[in-house]
Amino acid sequence: MTTSSFLDDYSEGAHPDILSALTESNYIQQAPYGDDTYSADATLRIKACLGETFNGAIHYVASGTMANIVSISSCLRPHEAVIAVNSGHIVVREAGAIEATGHKLITVPAVDGKLTPGNIEAALASNAHFPHMAKPRLIYISNATETGTIYTLAELRAISALARQRGLILFLDGARLGAALASSKNDATLADIASLVDLFWIGGTKVGTLLGEAIVVCNPALTDDFAFHLKQRGGMLAKGRVLGIQFQALFGVKNLFFENARHANAMAAKLAAGIVSLGYALDAETATNQVFPILPDAVIASLKARFSFYVWAKADDDQSVIRLVTSWSTDERQVDAFLERIAQL
Amino acid sequence: MTTSSFLDDYSEGAHPDILSALTESNYIQQAPYGDDTYSADATLRIKACLGETFNGAIHYVASGTMANIVSISSCLRPHEAVIAVNSGHIVVREAGAIEATGHKLITVPAVDGKLTPGNIEAALASNAHFPHMAKPRLIYISNATETGTIYTLAELRAISALARQRGLILFLDGARLGAALASSKNDATLADIASLVDLFWIGGTKVGTLLGEAIVVCNPALTDDFAFHLKQRGGMLAKGRVLGIQFQALFGVKNLFFENARHANAMAAKLAAGIVSLGYALDAETATNQVFPILPDAVIASLKARFSFYVWAKADDDQSVIRLVTSWSTDERQVDAFLERIAQL
Amino acid sequence: MTTSSFLDDYSEGAHPDILSALTESNYIQQAPYGDDTYSADATLRIKACLGETFNGAIHYVASGTMANIVSISSCLRPHEAVIAVNSGHIVVREAGAIEATGHKLITVPAVDGKLTPGNIEAALASNAHFPHMAKPRLIYISNATETGTIYTLAELRAISALARQRGLILFLDGARLGAALASSKNDATLADIASLVDLFWIGGTKVGTLLGEAIVVCNPALTDDFAFHLKQRGGMLAKGRVLGIQFQALFGVKNLFFENARHANAMAAKLAAGIVSLGYALDAETATNQVFPILPDAVIASLKARFSFYVWAKADDDQSVIRLVTSWSTDERQVDAFLERIAQL
Amino acid sequence: MTTSSFLDDYSEGAHPDILSALTESNYIQQAPYGDDTYSADATLRIKACLGETFNGAIHYVASGTMANIVSISSCLRPHEAVIAVNSGHIVVREAGAIEATGHKLITVPAVDGKLTPGNIEAALASNAHFPHMAKPRLIYISNATETGTIYTLAELRAISALARQRGLILFLDGARLGAALASSKNDATLADIASLVDLFWIGGTKVGTLLGEAIVVCNPALTDDFAFHLKQRGGMLAKGRVLGIQFQALFGVKNLFFENARHANAMAAKLAAGIVSLGYALDAETATNQVFPILPDAVIASLKARFSFYVWAKADDDQSVIRLVTSWSTDERQVDAFLERIAQL
Repeated sequence: MTTSSFLDDYSEGAHPDILSALTESNYIQQAPYGDDTYSADATLRIKACLGETFNGAIHYVASGTMANIVSISSCLRPHEAVIAVNSGHIVVREAGAIEATGHKLITVPAVDGKLTPGNIEAALASNAHFPHMAKPRLIYISNATETGTIYTLAELRAISALARQRGLILFLDGARLGAALASSKNDATLADIASLVDLFWIGGTKVGTLLGEAIVVCNPALTDDFAFHLKQRGGMLAKGRVLGIQFQALFGVKNLFFENARHANAMAAKLAAGIVSLGYALDAETATNQVFPILPDAVIASLKARFSFYVWAKADDDQSVIRLVTSWSTDERQVDAFLERIAQL
Repeated sequence: MTTSSFLDDYSEGAHPDILSALTESNYIQQAPYGDDTYSADATLRIKACLGETFNGAIHYVASGTMANIVSISSCLRPHEAVIAVNSGHIVVREAGAIEATGHKLITVPAVDGKLTPGNIEAALASNAHFPHMAKPRLIYISNATETGTIYTLAELRAISALARQRGLILFLDGARLGAALASSKNDATLADIASLVDLFWIGGTKVGTLLGEAIVVCNPALTDDFAFHLKQRGGMLAKGRVLGIQFQALFGVKNLFFENARHANAMAAKLAAGIVSLGYALDAETATNQVFPILPDAVIASLKARFSFYVWAKADDDQSVIRLVTSWSTDERQVDAFLERIAQL
Repeated sequence: MTTSSFLDDYSEGAHPDILSALTESNYIQQAPYGDDTYSADATLRIKACLGETFNGAIHYVASGTMANIVSISSCLRPHEAVIAVNSGHIVVREAGAIEATGHKLITVPAVDGKLTPGNIEAALASNAHFPHMAKPRLIYISNATETGTIYTLAELRAISALARQRGLILFLDGARLGAALASSKNDATLADIASLVDLFWIGGTKVGTLLGEAIVVCNPALTDDFAFHLKQRGGMLAKGRVLGIQFQALFGVKNLFFENARHANAMAAKLAAGIVSLGYALDAETATNQVFPILPDAVIASLKARFSFYVWAKADDDQSVIRLVTSWSTDERQVDAFLERIAQL
Repeated sequence: MTTSSFLDDYSEGAHPDILSALTESNYIQQAPYGDDTYSADATLRIKACLGETFNGAIHYVASGTMANIVSISSCLRPHEAVIAVNSGHIVVREAGAIEATGHKLITVPAVDGKLTPGNIEAALASNAHFPHMAKPRLIYISNATETGTIYTLAELRAISALARQRGLILFLDGARLGAALASSKNDATLADIASLVDLFWIGGTKVGTLLGEAIVVCNPALTDDFAFHLKQRGGMLAKGRVLGIQFQALFGVKNLFFENARHANAMAAKLAAGIVSLGYALDAETATNQVFPILPDAVIASLKARFSFYVWAKADDDQSVIRLVTSWSTDERQVDAFLERIAQL
């Protein structure tokens, strides 16, 4: 197992246990469309993490954009709009997928990548001209955020309280929820999240599945008819077992969901600490599996010969910020090699 | 490998060669979103079947409904409608997925499960009241059809000629295209289809992949911007490799796409012939991998104890039509056991 | 006032009282977007016809298609479908307007132009395959129907009872509601309709306004946020007064809404009776303001020289069905002239 | 004719000539759906203003939001997005109408209420991540802008040149186009606009019609099938004559379109000059029919007792900006009375 790339956390296939689970179950005949026993068991395993009061439903889809499309469009009426930060994934990375289902996105500047009660209140205040403005109805947050920051439990509680007070739906995009929950800065559990939001999803793709995200519908009022939306948007697989088996493995005895994320975060933390100890600064704190070092352009050019990563932004005339992403499959020797190479340069 | 079910052709996982290909490639890092080398190679392999004049593009998605959504919505303007048979999959099995993208379905009675120049002309004639009726623009056919029948090359040519004469887009849903092409009644090739339609898709799920369908955009005028539609509808996987690898295997040296379909069809033919030789009639000719025997209700009840299948319709007071579906994984011993059990009864 | 045309009931401008009302109020400044005193008063006048238990809301829009778009799309979730007869206006005369808002139309054959509990039950039964079929949710009827027939009170009650039993929304398109209520065969009142349906609209255009239809939302659960939908679909006029003033006049002391319709129906009845007394048959009973005589083609050709009307269908080799439509502005002398001309021929 | 309100330019009915035209034509039978002779003549009159090279089409709709919906949705494919200023009418005053047709709005900060080549280029640059971002395709401008500023001919030419160079569609919302063209700062003609944009609309409602806007499709490639979109969105009136007659009057010998706008602008200019001569400042230059004086709160309170207007924003602790809107029907004596009242205070 070798890794030469810090480009992203979806460059490889799946964790080997997941491939094994797919292989072992291969010839066992199952009902289609998510009614298989693997999906049922995966759902039980996830529910075990959601707290005793959880009274919702779980569905599996192939991609994160699909998870966002189905989750958001299933619970909004045509005139209802979404509040999100300018940098939100649904705002700038999904080709207008939410608008394609008919809904306006109301965007506000992010605070450290995040929504806050303050910027939500601002969005409500500036979109209140009835009936000339679309009605703000759903709050979209992602954890971890697009910039790798995470929400504390107190922050989630504050947004949840505001949502309930104002009659808003709170939805959490969990493409990198594993990285968030495994962060040393995190103090929230899956059960906390399930109790605070109306619906959220648990990303599988970036934490070691071939594909697959689990949508958790927490608010019982939103569970009715959910399967229709999955089917209508093209999100229901004939072999739903393929998703169920993978989430079974993620939430099995080895707790791969947390362990894979923890490994990725640990590799990022080691990169960050190593780079700082070599005298270079970071452009942002490393909370999850993304590191943003500021390096001299000459150093960057040399590193590029042996490692893959994105140059993120110019820092000044001679330096740039680069982005390093680690994953469940990042080999620690690769991290060491990267740090050694910087030290040489 | 044992099979106790004739319920459908997506009860198992994947052909073992496909699982092996996923496993072997697992740690090789690849670019995301379909820009991986496996997808590129799969595309080359499929193109090799499409004829020298093919000048289009190929994209991979996770599900058949997604293939239909993206294919149809990418090439229609808002006022344009789809012509399909009453029993079409997009009409009665996709929860209104096409209407959800804004387009009307104009339905006509099927002729042996199929559209014909005649019923297409009828649809055009009865939807010509400009501008009060949506404009018929796209012809939707599936091969094999919902009822397991297939289009002959002459039939496809006739529809294609009409489409070109009337300025219509011709689209073919290939969820069971493998079964159609491997049918003993088939006289069309992939290259024929590519030359006659504007776009079509090659189903992987029902011919042995874990998931995945390949959309073939034949008309060069429709290739621009296609990737936007994939992304916007949630049809683009971060690990696009997962689809590419599987289609690489389907269209590899073993020609699994055709061989898997041929096996399914052969098992269906054996079932059909055996049942007829035992003195029972079929409700419809067996062209692909679906068999519709008419059996006494008492026989059906006994069979149900050991085999899974759907009772399709009442034939008369004492007899019913059942549906038997075979697949790439149907074990011939299971077919023999089924026939023996009927003989005993 | 002369009329040479029996083409339709929207060939002229408005009833003179309506023009006068627009002129008299012209310089009085009013709040925009439907918040004017004229609209408020028109609403009071209409509510006076709706029964004491009415607890809904009334809104005014410019066109019938807009009334259908807003009414239907405001109360459906994305996966919910509409049940209508094959010949329904939304099915064949609105260019796919309802599908453009994302909803499937489930069509059934009409019984004398109408839906019945029987064909609604059939639609429910054949669209019950969860979650693969869109969920039937709203029943669309029009009164009078596209073919000029009307619903009796008993028929409306039966459909309403079924709708409530099955959790369906009942919606009535009233483009020609005036003609229906003024029919000699009618036994329903506006108050009856308001008590039986969830929402309906009262057509103004075909009963003497320049434009304008009044949407009556009867079910209090559907009134919230209705104005958003009006605005979002482009159905809210800056000078909402223009619609309010006209409905004030329609529902004023002269009761123009009923009187105009009664005149149109009376002219149709006179045409029908006269044609029958001249020895010609009718293709359908004359319930409202549409007459369908069967005449020799030679007679039709001669009539065409002096009158405008549509030839509707071939009856046999030598005869055709024509359609004659009368309106609030049809001059009785024109009816006499038409009958005299037939007599001469 | 008295005016007590400076709230907006749609508080009254219609210019008396328009009411007369409706009355005079009332009983003349006409073809429906815009195929009447009045609409045909109105179109000829407007075309006479559009220059000899104009080779497009003109359609009439009831409301400005409808004009925007039909214009924009008729020429975009699902993945294509609109560039507009943050304060654009479609962004903040149409309840998400454009998103409801499936399209993303990409917003940029306005420069004096306007788009510029600079902020358009910025929008293109920051939305270029193929295929993860919706494709910028249509530039939305309004003239006059939401804040009453206007585009110079040079500014329009620069945007048009950029649009053509980058393959973008240029669309102009002309809700207050009359006010813009009648501005003393204006140097563009209708013919200039028709030669520079792909489509635009000429607002009738705010310049003296009861309702009605004329959509001018300049680019011949966009004229095909336009009527389908009108019908599908509910924008086609059965009595299309109602719109045609009014635009005939607007573009008749009296040139009401320009004269009504000129009167409104003149009244605004007189208000502005008078207020400045009384020693008060304006928050923005007065280019059209909107005036934004900065007045002491005590003065505002007194004015409110006799005149209607909006308080727009706080200027400082003791002063506020108010908005005064004049119209075709503003009585000069009312302007004088307003200025006298300020002088007294």
